[in-house]
Amino acid sequence: MGAHHTTVRVGVVGTGIMGADHIDTLHRQVNGAAVTMVADLDLGRARAVAAALPGVRATDDGLALIGDPAVDAVVVASADVTHADLTVAAVQAGKPVMCEKPLAPTLPECLRVVQAELAAVRAGGPPLVSVGFMRRFDPGYRELKSALEAGACGTPLLVHCVSRGVAAGPGSTSESSVTGSAIHELDTVPWLLDAPVVEVSWHAPRPTAAAPEMQDPQLLLLRTADGVLTTVEVFLNAGYGYDIRCEVVGDRGTLALTNPARVVADADRRRATGYPADWRPWFADAYRTELQAFIDAAAAGRPSPLATAHDGLTAGAVADAVITSMHQDGRRLPVKVPAVDPPTT
Amino acid sequence: MGAHHTTVRVGVVGTGIMGADHIDTLHRQVNGAAVTMVADLDLGRARAVAAALPGVRATDDGLALIGDPAVDAVVVASADVTHADLTVAAVQAGKPVMCEKPLAPTLPECLRVVQAELAAVRAGGPPLVSVGFMRRFDPGYRELKSALEAGACGTPLLVHCVSRGVAAGPGSTSESSVTGSAIHELDTVPWLLDAPVVEVSWHAPRPTAAAPEMQDPQLLLLRTADGVLTTVEVFLNAGYGYDIRCEVVGDRGTLALTNPARVVADADRRRATGYPADWRPWFADAYRTELQAFIDAAAAGRPSPLATAHDGLTAGAVADAVITSMHQDGRRLPVKVPAVDPPTT
Amino acid sequence: MGAHHTTVRVGVVGTGIMGADHIDTLHRQVNGAAVTMVADLDLGRARAVAAALPGVRATDDGLALIGDPAVDAVVVASADVTHADLTVAAVQAGKPVMCEKPLAPTLPECLRVVQAELAAVRAGGPPLVSVGFMRRFDPGYRELKSALEAGACGTPLLVHCVSRGVAAGPGSTSESSVTGSAIHELDTVPWLLDAPVVEVSWHAPRPTAAAPEMQDPQLLLLRTADGVLTTVEVFLNAGYGYDIRCEVVGDRGTLALTNPARVVADADRRRATGYPADWRPWFADAYRTELQAFIDAAAAGRPSPLATAHDGLTAGAVADAVITSMHQDGRRLPVKVPAVDPPTT
Amino acid sequence: MGAHHTTVRVGVVGTGIMGADHIDTLHRQVNGAAVTMVADLDLGRARAVAAALPGVRATDDGLALIGDPAVDAVVVASADVTHADLTVAAVQAGKPVMCEKPLAPTLPECLRVVQAELAAVRAGGPPLVSVGFMRRFDPGYRELKSALEAGACGTPLLVHCVSRGVAAGPGSTSESSVTGSAIHELDTVPWLLDAPVVEVSWHAPRPTAAAPEMQDPQLLLLRTADGVLTTVEVFLNAGYGYDIRCEVVGDRGTLALTNPARVVADADRRRATGYPADWRPWFADAYRTELQAFIDAAAAGRPSPLATAHDGLTAGAVADAVITSMHQDGRRLPVKVPAVDPPTT
Repeated sequence: MGAHHTTVRVGVVGTGIMGADHIDTLHRQVNGAAVTMVADLDLGRARAVAAALPGVRATDDGLALIGDPAVDAVVVASADVTHADLTVAAVQAGKPVMCEKPLAPTLPECLRVVQAELAAVRAGGPPLVSVGFMRRFDPGYRELKSALEAGACGTPLLVHCVSRGVAAGPGSTSESSVTGSAIHELDTVPWLLDAPVVEVSWHAPRPTAAAPEMQDPQLLLLRTADGVLTTVEVFLNAGYGYDIRCEVVGDRGTLALTNPARVVADADRRRATGYPADWRPWFADAYRTELQAFIDAAAAGRPSPLATAHDGLTAGAVADAVITSMHQDGRRLPVKVPAVDPPTT
Repeated sequence: MGAHHTTVRVGVVGTGIMGADHIDTLHRQVNGAAVTMVADLDLGRARAVAAALPGVRATDDGLALIGDPAVDAVVVASADVTHADLTVAAVQAGKPVMCEKPLAPTLPECLRVVQAELAAVRAGGPPLVSVGFMRRFDPGYRELKSALEAGACGTPLLVHCVSRGVAAGPGSTSESSVTGSAIHELDTVPWLLDAPVVEVSWHAPRPTAAAPEMQDPQLLLLRTADGVLTTVEVFLNAGYGYDIRCEVVGDRGTLALTNPARVVADADRRRATGYPADWRPWFADAYRTELQAFIDAAAAGRPSPLATAHDGLTAGAVADAVITSMHQDGRRLPVKVPAVDPPTT
Repeated sequence: MGAHHTTVRVGVVGTGIMGADHIDTLHRQVNGAAVTMVADLDLGRARAVAAALPGVRATDDGLALIGDPAVDAVVVASADVTHADLTVAAVQAGKPVMCEKPLAPTLPECLRVVQAELAAVRAGGPPLVSVGFMRRFDPGYRELKSALEAGACGTPLLVHCVSRGVAAGPGSTSESSVTGSAIHELDTVPWLLDAPVVEVSWHAPRPTAAAPEMQDPQLLLLRTADGVLTTVEVFLNAGYGYDIRCEVVGDRGTLALTNPARVVADADRRRATGYPADWRPWFADAYRTELQAFIDAAAAGRPSPLATAHDGLTAGAVADAVITSMHQDGRRLPVKVPAVDPPTT
Repeated sequence: MGAHHTTVRVGVVGTGIMGADHIDTLHRQVNGAAVTMVADLDLGRARAVAAALPGVRATDDGLALIGDPAVDAVVVASADVTHADLTVAAVQAGKPVMCEKPLAPTLPECLRVVQAELAAVRAGGPPLVSVGFMRRFDPGYRELKSALEAGACGTPLLVHCVSRGVAAGPGSTSESSVTGSAIHELDTVPWLLDAPVVEVSWHAPRPTAAAPEMQDPQLLLLRTADGVLTTVEVFLNAGYGYDIRCEVVGDRGTLALTNPARVVADADRRRATGYPADWRPWFADAYRTELQAFIDAAAAGRPSPLATAHDGLTAGAVADAVITSMHQDGRRLPVKVPAVDPPTT
């Protein structure tokens, strides 16, 4: 058989759970994509992933991957602390890059990425950075947003979000609950409402005994510029399953995500649907269509429809305000998004 | 046919929507009850209600009804401002009385009722006052409480409540949203958790255009003595229907009320269940079983299992703190339940 | 306290699960009812039930109960084979009687009851017999019927019914699945559609290993005079819970009963509602309102709105045709309701 | 950018709704696929579809497409009557072919395809024919089958299927309801149960007034070799929406597909989820993953995991028996799958 249309050769940095999932999706389910290179500090892990696919090379050097001529586009799925450096490197190499959320764990790093991209754009290049806020591609959230825009619930007034997981990963902290988990809601809510978060406050019940070293669950209140008030429950150790909820309450009705379970079972005096153990089954379609959109844009040389570096910075600024409130007894605080002032180069 | 067992003769003060509903329920569905007298300032309304039932007299004088020898027990369903006086009068007449919520719109009035009852008890009588927090009798709430006590969700950490109606009644205010509607949650949550509310704060999104004269919806945060954090959305003009929700989130799972719709219809590209226009169909069984329990206790001469006068005072104190927070920019405030110091008689 | 309105004094024959439930409901939740006498062949059981309530006498003689001057109305909840004799005795005593379904296990017995009542009516009395097809009083079925009559699904074409229980009672047979369980659907479907069943056929899959001595589950096809086709799955040993379903499919949509669970729980990777172990919680309101309607009619001396003796005869005739089909390899058979020819008296 | 891995060049015959959907899916969402050629008797339609994609040629000659050297694999989505000829031509051209269901509208044609493939296999080639029973790839059905095989409902005894659409297409007949719509259930049920259908009967209520020229809805009873009894309601003009249901009832519980709606809306006294107008949104993932599996197999030169030609023949034989029952007053009939006796070549 022959080949006639463009294939985007993708290098993936990070081969942990998230990276491996992206590699599998790109390789098996994305039109026009071919994974050609993978990188991981744990070279053995990278090699194991590479060996499972035809024609994939492994390295322990993410920067080498980014610079490799066999890599057209980069996916960054390594540890959060590496995000900014790798993404800036891809920008400087002139390659489209999708960085997993968060864009970076600190605001200054986020700002550095935005500035690097802006410098490249000012130098005549296209915007190259996408951020992996995949819920923007989830069929449920998209339908919710469409219905919202079509006025199905009238003018939105309140949003209620719930983000629960089975158990927090190792090293989780009260702060990483915000930057690593609630960050999804911090991006999704303003995206849904088309209005930025301008004020936040942080609240907490007694913590679960399952994670005594951190505050879990947490309750965030967000106020967007349109005056809508949002509640966000984040509960990493909810135990029972992975469960994401979102309800928009308007002046004429409500719109909410359903539970996406596909099968209902009657047994043992119960009628039940299942919860997955983690996010992968729940958001499989969101990840797949996000990656497809990233690859389509890369193939066409146009900016991607994914969240931008500035979206990543903005979500980071909201997270920063939430964490400050956490450390100031739940005080109500304004959100300050840093002004972007690119270094002259 | 003959009669052989005790019938409790009930007088009902107030023949508006709530009073008429109680009269109908007592007359048609409560074992051992007979409505013998009804009172309303609007005598025509009282007479119309009385005429529809056999053997019922009408008056425009609630105190006369309370004192009438043909009345064994009293139900107070008149305007909120009359609750305290009528309930005290029933206590002083030595008759069991079920006062609709709120026990009274102000804390001093609530306290006056509690003190009057305490004085009567100190004088050797039984406790006579019940408060119409009927959700304690709702099959859904009761099953939720049983499951909670059985440990079905582990240790509770958060509660999420929603209380929505179609349209606020005439004369509604931001404050009456609390004393007249949210008051149910202010009683139900501590009853569910078996822990008093000790701290509150009040929050609000932009208001619905449907009721510009008041703040609607509102969001309350309640902290109970056990450290559980509760969110309460109160939205009187939600428009789409009467809708009550409650979810308890514990460290091992959650427990939530279902929507009690009995029929689901497929039509016009939709799968739908219906919402009622007001509380009557939703809580019909709660009102019926509450009244049955009140009547059974009255017939037996024992204290009723309904909410007590002190429960009414406590809910009033929480409402008072919420309204103070409303007037102080959403400040977090402790709840202070007045100490009961009965007048010596 | 005093009494002023009429109380119907009820005698209940049969103090098994069903009878005990009726006694409890009448005594605790029905306005205007007082149980004064109970009968059971097992006198000890009758006495135990009586002892739990004030002013109730026990006997082992159902006919004596029927004839007792302290009994105004009779409820028959004894073994099916006794239904016809006891109901005829009540008719001849001139007392309103509610006979549990089936009216009788055989067609000739059903006919005998209908003839006895007709003779009494021709002699100038009121119709006295009601049959306990309580689903006609279930809030779900009633709302389904109202919506159907309002045209919510257009013209009905198909009905799908499911009737499942945890485990068949002792002595259950393939035939008693029809006369004791499916009999509810055999009454409810024509009541919903306002059209009699005119043709039936019987079908069966491999049987469950849980009850090798009988055919369980079974599938019935019913054709009503309006041309609607109904499927009825009857599965006594379904194991997982008590579960009743009914969906009407029309030319513009469908209408179906919901599962009446009140609480939903998240735990152990599952979102679940519960099933009861038997019919009592599911149909508690149906039984209560049915008994209330029976008592109201008895107090007023008017015919009850419950299913009539002729409805009992008709359901019996459908059951008879189904059982004949069962014995004739699932042959399609017409339903023949015996003509009522009362003995001249 | 460069390309390095194999791309399967696909020719699609038929550019109606189904064909256009396949082309779009292959082009946008399938890894390793490129549509290079499309054919339609309506050349204008073919050209319009081709013009929307880069590098696609159009023809009005399906056989020319099959023979074109730029086509590695063929998808047949033209009119049912053309399926056999085109599929045989692809087999004889040695190219993998996915034929939309039904394999052919008549049994002899189905048999011809099976024989042609068998001849090619005997001549040393691989099996080349796949049939588009895409429900085998639907996430819901797959999870149902997995749970079934894991024993989640015990031993299956009954299956209840519902297949409803908004309105029958032009030219629909009572027979095409079976060969064009119910055919999905005729394949899916034996696939789920891993047991062939051995006996069928056909039943019908009064028809909907919406389609007086045909019998709609219909009810099929299927018996599989394991003794399980299946009901299938097929209702092409159900009006309210596209709706597919499947419940397996076992001796320990049940397993059923859920409604895959992603958003629930409260408005106008209703809580509602939506139904799509046709199958595309409902089964989008099934079609996508089916095509991906077909392309993966073609790229690897191995037999596909899709339904085989013999599966298509078997479903055709069941459909044939159902239609015979339809014409013989609903008689119970055995299913006879023609013996495959390939022509010697």
